[in-house]
Amino acid sequence: MIERIAILGTGLLGASAGLALRAAGFRGSIVGWNRSPQSAQTALAAGALDAIATDPLQAARESQVILLATPVFAILDWMEQLSGVLGPDHLITDVGSTKAQIAAAATRLYNQPGRAAFLPGHPMAGKEVSGAANADAALYRSAVWLFTDDPGAQRSAQAAALVKDWREWVAAIGARPINLDPARHDELVAWVSHLPQFVSTAMSALLESELGDAPELKDVGGRALREMTRLGSSPYSMWRDIAHTNTAQIEAVLHALEQRLAHVRENLRTPELRDEFDQANRFRRQS
Amino acid sequence: MIERIAILGTGLLGASAGLALRAAGFRGSIVGWNRSPQSAQTALAAGALDAIATDPLQAARESQVILLATPVFAILDWMEQLSGVLGPDHLITDVGSTKAQIAAAATRLYNQPGRAAFLPGHPMAGKEVSGAANADAALYRSAVWLFTDDPGAQRSAQAAALVKDWREWVAAIGARPINLDPARHDELVAWVSHLPQFVSTAMSALLESELGDAPELKDVGGRALREMTRLGSSPYSMWRDIAHTNTAQIEAVLHALEQRLAHVRENLRTPELRDEFDQANRFRRQS
Repeated sequence: MIERIAILGTGLLGASAGLALRAAGFRGSIVGWNRSPQSAQTALAAGALDAIATDPLQAARESQVILLATPVFAILDWMEQLSGVLGPDHLITDVGSTKAQIAAAATRLYNQPGRAAFLPGHPMAGKEVSGAANADAALYRSAVWLFTDDPGAQRSAQAAALVKDWREWVAAIGARPINLDPARHDELVAWVSHLPQFVSTAMSALLESELGDAPELKDVGGRALREMTRLGSSPYSMWRDIAHTNTAQIEAVLHALEQRLAHVRENLRTPELRDEFDQANRFRRQS
Repeated sequence: MIERIAILGTGLLGASAGLALRAAGFRGSIVGWNRSPQSAQTALAAGALDAIATDPLQAARESQVILLATPVFAILDWMEQLSGVLGPDHLITDVGSTKAQIAAAATRLYNQPGRAAFLPGHPMAGKEVSGAANADAALYRSAVWLFTDDPGAQRSAQAAALVKDWREWVAAIGARPINLDPARHDELVAWVSHLPQFVSTAMSALLESELGDAPELKDVGGRALREMTRLGSSPYSMWRDIAHTNTAQIEAVLHALEQRLAHVRENLRTPELRDEFDQANRFRRQS
């Protein structure tokens, strides 16, 4: 039933969504827009879009579903802008990495009688490289797609049907839709996504400071090093917004890890080290 | 020219060495011994060995090359025991993860006129799972095999030829032999191997404490989490010896990372965060 989708932000996630929808048999039109016209061209050339919008607000008005696929601050900006131009039969959804501020804006600006619908979403998928050039129709396959919808949302019958249809397309592209409370979402992703990222960034930056010019480094580093620093390639532009919109949770998890590392460091030669390995082994067995 | 090898310790590294030698065309005999007879049986059944030794000291005496493939403390024990029973035409080599103590023992017990030769080695290869059952003929392919030989070693012509031949077999199984000073070795591996391991262990143990029973965890965690905690499966038995034989270096790198994480935590909302991402990006580009 969705016949026209506008993707605002045609980077890795937005362009991959276009490719994945096509691969799953979506026959409606997909129009895209990007702040950098070159990125939109790349997405168009890859087959992720049918057309590039010249006016994103007009393209949104002419679509039924608007997918916001930018970093979080730009999503919040689009939410403000679009709230003035869309009507009750439009659905906006997003792929933003933090959800508390977006869910709050959705409640404030959308999901009320006479206003457009907003369904906050977050696919747990990505790469350490960004941009439309790295887009992949299989990016969302087997990934979880988290939704932090407002149980009190009020929507037109048309918008409610679009929500249902969008969830079905998410499943059709191979992702698994899961519902979560926005605050719990931000707490969990601080542990399972933001902690790994900031640790990998800190470790990569530290190794660059300490060993950046050591000629033996390339020889000695193996799979463990490559894997633990892979996320060191992640772009600041995206992670700045995450750091700003989930600050307290990220501070808490980083502080907890600092203390845990100190505990390991102080117990390198005591039996406590065995307990740490046992507990780590247990985590890996169950996750 | 090597016709008989004894592998003492037929776990992941020892059994993989046997399989790799066979795959590379080694036609001599390979005898193995393990503290757990079941592990030796597994290695034999996999084709890594021709026979299981009943008496490891006698098997060593009857071989030209003895490969010590156990955790570091057991290597140091074997070095003591074997020094009494081997002669100047024997070569012992090892795969131990730290090299300063092993190199010091080699200088004290071996590499002198009338004594056996010892070549300290360390292949940068492994898995997060141990044991002969996980052995793999391709484990060493493209891996670096570090040697921390003593430039003052005094060896018989026969032992010197065995050293040359062993280095050639290491290359034949697909590894890249690299020479390094033992102290520099232990400093570098603290950064590129021990730091990643202890961080992954601490992060996995922390997540087990904080989220071990959270039902949503399995849903939300993606590739970043799996990758950053993969080494959490590593066995304490091996890492205890590393922690004990490279303590000061590991303390230093863990402390440096704790400070770097605190710096990131204190700058989540400042432009300093961009510098950290930039530096991390640089590390990834060059490594």
